[in-house]
Amino acid sequence: MSQLDQKSQAWSALFSEPMSELVKRYTSSVGFDKRLWRADIDGSLAHAQMLAAQGIISGQDLTGIEQGMAQIASEIERGEFDWKLDLEDVHLNIEARLTALVGDAGKRLHTGRSRNDQVATDVRLWLRGEIDLIADLLAGLQSALVDLAERHVEVILPGFTHLQVAQPVSFGHHMLAYVEMFARDAERLADVRRRVNRLPLGAAALAGTSYPLDRERVAQVLGMEGVCQNSLDAVSDRDFAIEFTAAAALAMVHVSRLSEELIIWMSQNFGFIELADRFTTGSSIMPQKKNPDVPELARGKTGRVVGHLMGLITLMKGQPLAYNKDNQEDKEPLFDTVDTLKDTLRIFIEMVGGITVRPEAMERAALRGHATATDLADYLVKKGLPFRDAHETVAHAVKAASERGLDLAQLPLAELQRFHAAIEQDVFEVLSLRGSLEARKVLGGTAPDQVRAQIARHRGRIEGPGNSM
Amino acid sequence: MSQLDQKSQAWSALFSEPMSELVKRYTSSVGFDKRLWRADIDGSLAHAQMLAAQGIISGQDLTGIEQGMAQIASEIERGEFDWKLDLEDVHLNIEARLTALVGDAGKRLHTGRSRNDQVATDVRLWLRGEIDLIADLLAGLQSALVDLAERHVEVILPGFTHLQVAQPVSFGHHMLAYVEMFARDAERLADVRRRVNRLPLGAAALAGTSYPLDRERVAQVLGMEGVCQNSLDAVSDRDFAIEFTAAAALAMVHVSRLSEELIIWMSQNFGFIELADRFTTGSSIMPQKKNPDVPELARGKTGRVVGHLMGLITLMKGQPLAYNKDNQEDKEPLFDTVDTLKDTLRIFIEMVGGITVRPEAMERAALRGHATATDLADYLVKKGLPFRDAHETVAHAVKAASERGLDLAQLPLAELQRFHAAIEQDVFEVLSLRGSLEARKVLGGTAPDQVRAQIARHRGRIEGPGNSM
Amino acid sequence: MSQLDQKSQAWSALFSEPMSELVKRYTSSVGFDKRLWRADIDGSLAHAQMLAAQGIISGQDLTGIEQGMAQIASEIERGEFDWKLDLEDVHLNIEARLTALVGDAGKRLHTGRSRNDQVATDVRLWLRGEIDLIADLLAGLQSALVDLAERHVEVILPGFTHLQVAQPVSFGHHMLAYVEMFARDAERLADVRRRVNRLPLGAAALAGTSYPLDRERVAQVLGMEGVCQNSLDAVSDRDFAIEFTAAAALAMVHVSRLSEELIIWMSQNFGFIELADRFTTGSSIMPQKKNPDVPELARGKTGRVVGHLMGLITLMKGQPLAYNKDNQEDKEPLFDTVDTLKDTLRIFIEMVGGITVRPEAMERAALRGHATATDLADYLVKKGLPFRDAHETVAHAVKAASERGLDLAQLPLAELQRFHAAIEQDVFEVLSLRGSLEARKVLGGTAPDQVRAQIARHRGRIEGPGNSM
Amino acid sequence: MSQLDQKSQAWSALFSEPMSELVKRYTSSVGFDKRLWRADIDGSLAHAQMLAAQGIISGQDLTGIEQGMAQIASEIERGEFDWKLDLEDVHLNIEARLTALVGDAGKRLHTGRSRNDQVATDVRLWLRGEIDLIADLLAGLQSALVDLAERHVEVILPGFTHLQVAQPVSFGHHMLAYVEMFARDAERLADVRRRVNRLPLGAAALAGTSYPLDRERVAQVLGMEGVCQNSLDAVSDRDFAIEFTAAAALAMVHVSRLSEELIIWMSQNFGFIELADRFTTGSSIMPQKKNPDVPELARGKTGRVVGHLMGLITLMKGQPLAYNKDNQEDKEPLFDTVDTLKDTLRIFIEMVGGITVRPEAMERAALRGHATATDLADYLVKKGLPFRDAHETVAHAVKAASERGLDLAQLPLAELQRFHAAIEQDVFEVLSLRGSLEARKVLGGTAPDQVRAQIARHRGRIEGPGNSM
Repeated sequence: MSQLDQKSQAWSALFSEPMSELVKRYTSSVGFDKRLWRADIDGSLAHAQMLAAQGIISGQDLTGIEQGMAQIASEIERGEFDWKLDLEDVHLNIEARLTALVGDAGKRLHTGRSRNDQVATDVRLWLRGEIDLIADLLAGLQSALVDLAERHVEVILPGFTHLQVAQPVSFGHHMLAYVEMFARDAERLADVRRRVNRLPLGAAALAGTSYPLDRERVAQVLGMEGVCQNSLDAVSDRDFAIEFTAAAALAMVHVSRLSEELIIWMSQNFGFIELADRFTTGSSIMPQKKNPDVPELARGKTGRVVGHLMGLITLMKGQPLAYNKDNQEDKEPLFDTVDTLKDTLRIFIEMVGGITVRPEAMERAALRGHATATDLADYLVKKGLPFRDAHETVAHAVKAASERGLDLAQLPLAELQRFHAAIEQDVFEVLSLRGSLEARKVLGGTAPDQVRAQIARHRGRIEGPGNSM
Repeated sequence: MSQLDQKSQAWSALFSEPMSELVKRYTSSVGFDKRLWRADIDGSLAHAQMLAAQGIISGQDLTGIEQGMAQIASEIERGEFDWKLDLEDVHLNIEARLTALVGDAGKRLHTGRSRNDQVATDVRLWLRGEIDLIADLLAGLQSALVDLAERHVEVILPGFTHLQVAQPVSFGHHMLAYVEMFARDAERLADVRRRVNRLPLGAAALAGTSYPLDRERVAQVLGMEGVCQNSLDAVSDRDFAIEFTAAAALAMVHVSRLSEELIIWMSQNFGFIELADRFTTGSSIMPQKKNPDVPELARGKTGRVVGHLMGLITLMKGQPLAYNKDNQEDKEPLFDTVDTLKDTLRIFIEMVGGITVRPEAMERAALRGHATATDLADYLVKKGLPFRDAHETVAHAVKAASERGLDLAQLPLAELQRFHAAIEQDVFEVLSLRGSLEARKVLGGTAPDQVRAQIARHRGRIEGPGNSM
Repeated sequence: MSQLDQKSQAWSALFSEPMSELVKRYTSSVGFDKRLWRADIDGSLAHAQMLAAQGIISGQDLTGIEQGMAQIASEIERGEFDWKLDLEDVHLNIEARLTALVGDAGKRLHTGRSRNDQVATDVRLWLRGEIDLIADLLAGLQSALVDLAERHVEVILPGFTHLQVAQPVSFGHHMLAYVEMFARDAERLADVRRRVNRLPLGAAALAGTSYPLDRERVAQVLGMEGVCQNSLDAVSDRDFAIEFTAAAALAMVHVSRLSEELIIWMSQNFGFIELADRFTTGSSIMPQKKNPDVPELARGKTGRVVGHLMGLITLMKGQPLAYNKDNQEDKEPLFDTVDTLKDTLRIFIEMVGGITVRPEAMERAALRGHATATDLADYLVKKGLPFRDAHETVAHAVKAASERGLDLAQLPLAELQRFHAAIEQDVFEVLSLRGSLEARKVLGGTAPDQVRAQIARHRGRIEGPGNSM
Repeated sequence: MSQLDQKSQAWSALFSEPMSELVKRYTSSVGFDKRLWRADIDGSLAHAQMLAAQGIISGQDLTGIEQGMAQIASEIERGEFDWKLDLEDVHLNIEARLTALVGDAGKRLHTGRSRNDQVATDVRLWLRGEIDLIADLLAGLQSALVDLAERHVEVILPGFTHLQVAQPVSFGHHMLAYVEMFARDAERLADVRRRVNRLPLGAAALAGTSYPLDRERVAQVLGMEGVCQNSLDAVSDRDFAIEFTAAAALAMVHVSRLSEELIIWMSQNFGFIELADRFTTGSSIMPQKKNPDVPELARGKTGRVVGHLMGLITLMKGQPLAYNKDNQEDKEPLFDTVDTLKDTLRIFIEMVGGITVRPEAMERAALRGHATATDLADYLVKKGLPFRDAHETVAHAVKAASERGLDLAQLPLAELQRFHAAIEQDVFEVLSLRGSLEARKVLGGTAPDQVRAQIARHRGRIEGPGNSM
């Protein structure tokens, strides 16, 4: 039996009784942390190469470690690796197998490191890769939304505030609001990535090590931007996980807002859009139902990620330095946050491509609610009224129209002139949905030309070098 | 192929394309909700019996359903049931298998119900059972703590406020503080249980049903205390899950407080206790380490449960009536909360039994920090000083003792008398740890007789009928 | 100058320098805890009466304390009390004033107690009173909803699941769903109240006291249901605050759900209801706007209370026994939770009374979306089809109706018969909204008779003795 | 009476009844948002200057607005401004006063903007200023910690993992771990600042405006780095507030960790440090107490900020576009987060300067717990043993020492040699605390030279241009 076949044997001499079975199951992490295996092997190889370069282990040992690790990677990929609960975590599982394969060279790999700095390194390497995948998905979702926007620049949607009809907006413009949000999410993740991409390895248990390690070499080999400069901080810092989860929670909040709108828009009373059947589900009892399950579930999953953020913060609050076992609990919420965000973005990219827009329903809705009342006020301002007086004048006109069951734009000229003599025939252009839309030419406004300019900007940005903001 | 072999076929006629594979995986819940299988079958059987009693289905159908369900239960128990992702959830999986086994009788089972009221019923039945298991574990943990307290009634611990030595307390008394906490947790869960134990079935999709169901009979068969009185509320209410998770979070907060103390007490500078080796772990790098991994991990897992509470609340906030797919996300946090709390209580019951107390270290610590200064003030009050003046007098004495590197009780009588002439030889009894302890005879105080009386009360309460508070 | 005119002098002899001004402001709580003044005085009077009855203070001292407290209460009520930051908190402010007024008797009041048990007692007394006020408000809101329900039992609303038209429901029935929720909230608060209404006083700093206090007498005088049985737990337990805040958060979640619906219903595309103008606001720029600010703000304030819950849990997690200063932070979130919940309930009681229902808009909406498709399936089941087959048949009919732009109920008989030969003329009764409504006679269903029965039950319950559930 | 003297008159014509008093109080924000007054005036002036430059208002109007605003600023600074609840918020209060002072020019100020983009601009301008103040405080705290570290580079503290003695570390090194944390906090805030510092003004209510505004000019005047590119997003985005609060919560988590350590270190059983008396408080009952109230309260306030984060996320989750009144609730948590963080950092800067270190107590503690066991293992590795074998050998030696009540370093050479023959006299240098410390020369390790190099790096960084990381 290899010396590490039993995890408890990693420290057995001092202990008078074996670990309780209950404790083994309670403290074991291999069930979830085995997904870090590739990062663990990459980190170990970089460490071993540096140990050899520094003369701490022999070239022969390095060769042994490299060959052993190649075999282990292959075993794991083929699903043939025998993960053992007794060996507690991914690190001891891999190290024990390595020692079984290559003997003393395997036992020398752990020189100058501890599981404390090893696990911190593994999680950072893994998360860096996931952030890159998420960045691609965020770019994909932005592209899908820009495509949808481009097909519907001229479609007029009633813009809402307080879910009350406010002013007409371009449906394309509305979609671009979400592009802004997801672009900010990508920007935030890029900031997080910089702080993730630093090397704890070399901090050892907490105090650094007496071996002459070349930490900067290891960082360079692993593509990291720097080295954690304080060993105590290196092994106990989980800021990067909290910060990532906060950024993910915000991205999910954006998803929840888009979901809320899709759900409302699909409601029969709106009827603004349809989702492709493949994104909806029926009912086991009501034969007529097509339910927007995907956006509802995504809205619900927002809670899940927010909960993980809360869990991680609670975990770290009040922890003394340096490493404490509490930190083992950082992994599951982090892993589930990554999975949830990736799955959700992936399905939204597909789903956004399957949205059918109903322009007539949108336009019909925009004609209710006096959506161009502000335009009438602005018209009066241009005729010389102070804005506050114009606002008051239009409020009277809206009241009169409402009492007659009409929209403001449906009042005849003579009627409008009763509210102010300066109103003339040209007012009807101002009161039309399209007139209102075209008028909002200010930078960032909803005028179709502005929307098209933004689409061009986004395309350049998303498709440009580095997918940068 | 059975009609339900493909979940999407439960509503196929209306849909022009099959559900996307991505959507199937995203919306499928069978991976986690299959643990509800027994509650699902129990609920179905109660429903079927009532349908037959009301003449809605035939006795023959009932017999078929009962036989089919017996076989399904047996298949699941033996691990031979073929759970299908395509059938989305536990309900459709079981119903499809039932129809495969018994034909049209299976198709009739769903009469007068919907998955909306079915899943709400399943979760309530399941959670009720789990609450009962947790109540047993809470009673077990209280018993273990009472046992520990009883063995150490006379052991003197420095009681802390602000982690500063405050007054001597009985170690038993200190343990009983946690018994109070876990007793309140049990009390709270009993309150939650009443609200869990109500029947949604019969609410159907949202509006009730036109079949003449006898809901109260179903409630009775299932041992429920009542029937949800409003169908819309019945299918959309998840209060019980949130309320349970809040109670579980509080229980974990109590665990985290006990854990914090165990960890501090095990620190070499305290050395108040030792945990049995089987509850500790070593270090991969530091050969001397015995780490209190179990309490640390439990403290960390508090964050996990708090996160689930936050997730569930976020999920429900702002949801319109009645059922929305968001609610599918209630299960995983609820399941994990139950698992985490049960595992933690179970391991704490064992671990509390494995605590070794070091009375000398505790007493030595109690002799630092002038722990009996309050007793001296009370002594002076009994000699006639107003409390505030006595307090001030003792502060001067403490200052003098500190400057001489002594504890208050170590000052000679003559020195003490410099601070107040009323001080006499009997003061040293008052200033002794044991004298201080014995003096606090008030109900709920730390005097050993009081502690023993509380132990007797707890034993009666925990072992009494119904494990009630 | 009174001895306590400077708070720092409560412990001055031991300290070599006065408290930093920054620290005074940082640690002072009198700015917010002065709202506990009446509970503080009530608790002190009960304590003083017991001290006198036990012979610990003289009858003369008691008289002095009572007269002093009467004057203090009067000064506070008249706004003439001089609250001093230097005296840190409400307790020292009142005690210092008492000593200024009545001399040594005031200094004797603190005998056998500590601020640790005093503040715990004050907060519990105060919260008990607030819970009673909230219970009244919850009853008031239930009454307002029952009134609204009663006026609209026969109004037909499209019941939604997934915000898709599902089945017709009575608007009254829908309102009663919220009555159930607020009734559960009241039930939960009654449970919390039992755990709030226990007496910590007598625990002193942490260990109990050597004075022969009669704690049960004090509990009785204060109307409390029992005495905290462990002194360490008594001063460090904040479960009751967390539990209350969790219950308040759930009540706010219910408010948020009602708010969401009111906002959607007021949107022009629904137009189901109007709020009285006095509950809406306009826009500074859009003259036509009437916005449902009150439900939106209430929905937003849900976050506030949820945040307080999370804050309180974070506060307690991992705290060692007994009292720690962290606990001072329990007050502001608790106070703000009480204020927010009370304000919100009060305004909702008024607002619910100001809702105008638009039955035609609701009914028109219910006629879209094949709301009676389930009824057709049930009709076929009664003709002998297994439910799953009936469901499939109706799905075909819905598809055909949709393709012709009709609702299911608008298909001619001949057309319907193409889907199943058993369909006859009587199907149109089944397919009518009212027929569907009337059919759901099951207990808790939406049939008007059921709704009226529930209204009667609620009236009895709310107006009955003790406003109990 | 000025037209705006009653807030409800901003939209009065349309409304048939005045706003309820209850609603006024519920929806009014002037009580808290008046702290935005300077940002509101700055934003208005930049807007007015641009309006004049674009010819939308006259130069005369601009002059009037500027003079009126100067007077208003002066009134507010002198505390003479009459804030009116009826005018709801800071914006209408200032605008109404402006109109009272300068007539029609005041009414023209609101041309081309809405309160939706105005409040978003105000909050961003205000928060940008607060971030700069917080950045200074974070730099100040880092400096204070670096100073403390520098004074104690050679002081040996037992480094803990799992609160068990692990390895000796420099006290200065330990302090620098916190410098790293606060440096990351500053880095994060700099990232947040970029996203805060963008201009929403010009988005008007939600759709942009028909006036030819020059938004980039306004951004430039206000020192903003860019313009929000989508009007809908501009008025509904609160990411920046959430992101800021998340960064503040992390900073408070760091404060809570430092606080936890200070509290433990001040406990009599540790006695590692003393806080200056002016940062501690006494007890109303225990005359001997000096409590670390400031770190305890700071640890408690972490919950407060975490709660605000959760509140803000809950607020935004599921909100449809564009502005909803829910967003008014963003201010109080944001304001309180800023206040809490600033107050806490300010007091910590002072308090860190008042820490007295007890080197003997630290060193004494480091001599318990076999702190140099890892060094012995490393010693054996250098003699040729594989690390895992060396680890096992040392575990045996530790066990033997423990059984004799000795620390590893106290075992005589002959005894040590029983565990491995390669052990020689030079082992005692290795087993000494100072030998262990000096050996950890790796980058980021605890060797004094490394610590001094880090101190120099931090000084350069903190005092360097831009206080950058």
